[in-house]
Amino acid sequence: MAEPLALAVDLGGTELRAAAVAKGGRFLAQAGMATDAAGGPERVVEQIVALLDDVRSRVPGAEILGLGVGAPGPLDPIAGIAIAPPTLKGWRDVPLARILGDRLSMPVRVENDANAAALGEWRYGAGRGLRSIVFVTVSTGIGGGVVADGRILHGRRGLAAEIGHMTITERGGPCFCGATGCFEAVASGSALGWSATAATRPGDGSRLRALAEDGPVTARHVVAAAREGDSQALALLAEEARWLGIGFTNLLHLYSPEAIVVGGGLSAALDLMEAGIARTIADRAMPAYRDVPVVPAGLGGQAGLAGAASLVLDPG
Amino acid sequence: MAEPLALAVDLGGTELRAAAVAKGGRFLAQAGMATDAAGGPERVVEQIVALLDDVRSRVPGAEILGLGVGAPGPLDPIAGIAIAPPTLKGWRDVPLARILGDRLSMPVRVENDANAAALGEWRYGAGRGLRSIVFVTVSTGIGGGVVADGRILHGRRGLAAEIGHMTITERGGPCFCGATGCFEAVASGSALGWSATAATRPGDGSRLRALAEDGPVTARHVVAAAREGDSQALALLAEEARWLGIGFTNLLHLYSPEAIVVGGGLSAALDLMEAGIARTIADRAMPAYRDVPVVPAGLGGQAGLAGAASLVLDPG
Repeated sequence: MAEPLALAVDLGGTELRAAAVAKGGRFLAQAGMATDAAGGPERVVEQIVALLDDVRSRVPGAEILGLGVGAPGPLDPIAGIAIAPPTLKGWRDVPLARILGDRLSMPVRVENDANAAALGEWRYGAGRGLRSIVFVTVSTGIGGGVVADGRILHGRRGLAAEIGHMTITERGGPCFCGATGCFEAVASGSALGWSATAATRPGDGSRLRALAEDGPVTARHVVAAAREGDSQALALLAEEARWLGIGFTNLLHLYSPEAIVVGGGLSAALDLMEAGIARTIADRAMPAYRDVPVVPAGLGGQAGLAGAASLVLDPG
Repeated sequence: MAEPLALAVDLGGTELRAAAVAKGGRFLAQAGMATDAAGGPERVVEQIVALLDDVRSRVPGAEILGLGVGAPGPLDPIAGIAIAPPTLKGWRDVPLARILGDRLSMPVRVENDANAAALGEWRYGAGRGLRSIVFVTVSTGIGGGVVADGRILHGRRGLAAEIGHMTITERGGPCFCGATGCFEAVASGSALGWSATAATRPGDGSRLRALAEDGPVTARHVVAAAREGDSQALALLAEEARWLGIGFTNLLHLYSPEAIVVGGGLSAALDLMEAGIARTIADRAMPAYRDVPVVPAGLGGQAGLAGAASLVLDPG
């Protein structure tokens, strides 16, 4: 007797992935390809169908409960519509759930990619068993999703938890979004790279520029140098930890989660920053919020697929 | 046949109020007295029982569905426990719901006062019919409550939506909470009064100091002078509107409500600030959030009592 399972799709602007996932978030089969974003929605739907055919062929006879899709926001999860994802040019109000449901003849649920990752970590990863978590990805930008009182926080048009764009400071350059002082503009991996680049010069003999081969310094170089004990890199990471601590304190006060779960590229350096983050939270958070743990995500790049599957496996 | 109704209590650090409320938020009877906070929980419970006796005597034969209580946070709404309200000295982990339930032999639900007011505005006031609102009170401090996707946002221990204490700036003096740069520290009515006091001097001939009889200038004086067209007061309110706009933009990005409902003393001046608030939101919010209305609260000082009643009249 084949066990029931969900199909899952993680639709990114550059990468398209699909999986068959069983209860508990166990991956049974997986496939991926580059997203042909320039081909438009019709072409990408064909890619999704082909990937799912591939995945299904590897779980013959399985009872498929439905399909869950994580896709770039803004996205209306109730209507199942991709509103206007900046990473998918030319997509505007695409009724993704309906199109895929018609093509595949199965129930389809969609969720924005950040919420899907939050769901994955909540159901199967670092947030398992909790009622409320904030999931934060810190990489090129800062994004996230919130599980509050046992369900994902949607708000109007599913647009809640745009946490990278809360204003926290007057400092830093203009944000990608057009405003200034956004959490993302001062605390993302990109911001860390800019700070490191501004703090050094080509040929200055610094470890950071050596690792960057005298080009612009990235967050990755900062983390690598810090692991070697480079004091300049450690100071930059201390400042990064302070910014993260300020943003996380806001998230504690605003959402009161039982844990802050940190994913994204920079979460690989969480061990180097956790003391600094904890110190900032202890300094700034009100007493009742200070003992909430900040923990690394458990599923890495699989969180989005796992969460997409959970839309079908653990709905509600 | 008497209509079913709820009893409601609004327990404040200085004022204690009770009401009998029918479906739709209609007040049938009301009573109040000064809170004998120094008398401790036992004494305040006696006061509540006496007030409710008074209220019930004025709706003879009514079918009482239960009691809803709004009380100062931090408060655990699930367990019904007042954790350590700063305005009620000596209260620590008081099981208010159980004590009152035992005394009154009826179902009792409690909610923190800010959430109760948010519920009142959502069920019966400016947020009626919406799925998601953020209720913000701007007075001495800044507080609020969030209704998200059709229910109050609680989070761990009911501590979500401590919106006055999100960091938004490096400016301003230290906040009451010990941190710096809190929304409350730069945008509350108190902060507006401090700014006005700092911008003037006793005997300087300003309208603000004249209204303040050369004492410290308060938010109330600023609003009064602005209504007379005083340019200094209008400039101070413009700056206040800018701070509110920055904070509200964060609330849009974080909770994605369908409306921001503004209560508290300073909401009486919302008409003078709404253009400035709207301009700041248009400047800083991402496009999908810009058309969300900022509206004045509809129930004034009754919101907390109405919301407490809604815990019984419209649970879930």
